[in-house]
Amino acid sequence: MLAAGAIRPAPLLAASASAPRKVIVDADIGVDDTMALLLVHFAPEVDIVGITTVNGNGTLDNTTRNALLLSEKFGIQAPVAKGAGVSLDNRTDTAPAFIHGDNAMGNIVLPSHINRTVDARPAWQMIVDMVHAHPHEITILGLGRLTNLALALRHDPTIATLTREVIVMGGGFGLHGDLGNVTPAAEANFKGDPMAADMVCGASWPMTIVGVDVTFQTTMTDAYLQDIRDQGGPASRLIWDVTRFYMAFHRQRLGLDAMYVNDASASAYLLRPDLFKTRRGAVRVVCGGVADGESIQKPAGKRFPPGAWDNRPEQVICTDVDSDGVRNLFARVLRGH
Amino acid sequence: MLAAGAIRPAPLLAASASAPRKVIVDADIGVDDTMALLLVHFAPEVDIVGITTVNGNGTLDNTTRNALLLSEKFGIQAPVAKGAGVSLDNRTDTAPAFIHGDNAMGNIVLPSHINRTVDARPAWQMIVDMVHAHPHEITILGLGRLTNLALALRHDPTIATLTREVIVMGGGFGLHGDLGNVTPAAEANFKGDPMAADMVCGASWPMTIVGVDVTFQTTMTDAYLQDIRDQGGPASRLIWDVTRFYMAFHRQRLGLDAMYVNDASASAYLLRPDLFKTRRGAVRVVCGGVADGESIQKPAGKRFPPGAWDNRPEQVICTDVDSDGVRNLFARVLRGH
Repeated sequence: MLAAGAIRPAPLLAASASAPRKVIVDADIGVDDTMALLLVHFAPEVDIVGITTVNGNGTLDNTTRNALLLSEKFGIQAPVAKGAGVSLDNRTDTAPAFIHGDNAMGNIVLPSHINRTVDARPAWQMIVDMVHAHPHEITILGLGRLTNLALALRHDPTIATLTREVIVMGGGFGLHGDLGNVTPAAEANFKGDPMAADMVCGASWPMTIVGVDVTFQTTMTDAYLQDIRDQGGPASRLIWDVTRFYMAFHRQRLGLDAMYVNDASASAYLLRPDLFKTRRGAVRVVCGGVADGESIQKPAGKRFPPGAWDNRPEQVICTDVDSDGVRNLFARVLRGH
Repeated sequence: MLAAGAIRPAPLLAASASAPRKVIVDADIGVDDTMALLLVHFAPEVDIVGITTVNGNGTLDNTTRNALLLSEKFGIQAPVAKGAGVSLDNRTDTAPAFIHGDNAMGNIVLPSHINRTVDARPAWQMIVDMVHAHPHEITILGLGRLTNLALALRHDPTIATLTREVIVMGGGFGLHGDLGNVTPAAEANFKGDPMAADMVCGASWPMTIVGVDVTFQTTMTDAYLQDIRDQGGPASRLIWDVTRFYMAFHRQRLGLDAMYVNDASASAYLLRPDLFKTRRGAVRVVCGGVADGESIQKPAGKRFPPGAWDNRPEQVICTDVDSDGVRNLFARVLRGH
């Protein structure tokens, strides 16, 4: 954990390609989703071309409203498309309000009116359209349950080979029973729609999963967030404000003096994959039963009798992270904004 | 891994209670089961009061024949009761013959006739009878799939509170996809009868599980086994003989120059629990789906939303082992026999 004032000189970001990467952010915004979205928005290597919403950290209405709010406030020009509020197997649960607040924005006072409005298309349609409009150029950053991505695949399986990359915060590998955040086996995004997660992990697009066992390694303290706020503008001020309720949840319910920033780790992987250790292999997500929502990778090259991992594409999972590197990246990008 | 000739002076065994512990060995004998059975047989702290058989490392006929053979050859006076050949959910699969051989004894030549015969009772009945005959005195050492223990519980649930302890080799915790031995999630004994494993883990008897992630830490080389054989009698000679085929399997299929001794680790826990690190918590075993047979512990004190681990007894799982200690124990007990 980073001590107050200990923000080190930031390393250079990874060298950008000539043009910024086109990214669709699919999210259930959300306190840590807000941080993740603003991190990629203010990173010059990224051009957010679309935002799609899903229920999870709040209701679909709230997460969609939050997406419109952030787009308007910070000038994100990309269209916002409303996505699924029901999982492939009809789950509709959302996180308890004591985590992200009743409005999924840490109960800060929100403006009474937002000018931005949602795109006419459902989220899955916008994903399909954009992937076809920019073949091999779109990266999808999945920060919530994966229902929209699964629906897009279901409507048009060809997008798998036309998408540049999928980066997902979800699941967990090596949970040992003590790191799952909704059951001893499962993480909330994958448990929110296990069928969707299993379908998305089984599609033949290049995919990286940042699981909760890795995201939990990177925490942020009030001193760290305050330091960024004090040097910053409206974005770092908003991050300070929305995290007050969320930090109190970590203090009171988890006994931590810092907060997890799960979704921001996936954004960090997009910007700086070199900060993460990874392992390749086919991934399955458990649907139903006591391990419902659990993610399990068969490491590439490891032999087993014929089974449920056969003939699935090898995906990349993160196994470790340079947490200081993630915090430095976040601070460098947000400072001044 | 222990180098040739590196067997250290053995520590004393844990202080025995005044009388030897009464132990029922439930097993699918089996190469490593042979080692596990002989380890407890020759340990003065243990009195084997019964052997019950189950299919797994071989067919039920073969594992039962092997139990009778070892009993006769080494003077184990306890009755041998034939157990289940079908799991609670009707699985009948056994390990492929390339692991334990066609006779589940590493294809050594077996005597054409065995005088010992099986007890008239089925295994579950003998377990129930013995627990009632010696209340709070019986320890059950489970080295195979747990069908017999589950049937005993099903016929007489009161045995749970009358059994002194259950020690099981099975499952695995913290497999990370790379340590399961039949799927990325599961170990063979638990996958052979997941319903039985879940029932046994849910019974309110004191239970310790030595999972495959821990047993895999203790390997034995030819040099180590040869050293014991050269100082020994018929038991260490038999262990040498039965392990030739099994060692070849490890060399040719697993790329190891040593062999796993999974079941012997459970015997070692019975004799020297101090060689293991443990963690308490309720345990569930996944029944069906891609994670079929996986074991998952909710660590005691770790809070989750209401779920499938609630209202289950806390059991002990092993999380680490002093492998040198296990090898030293095995060598000390077997040397001379």
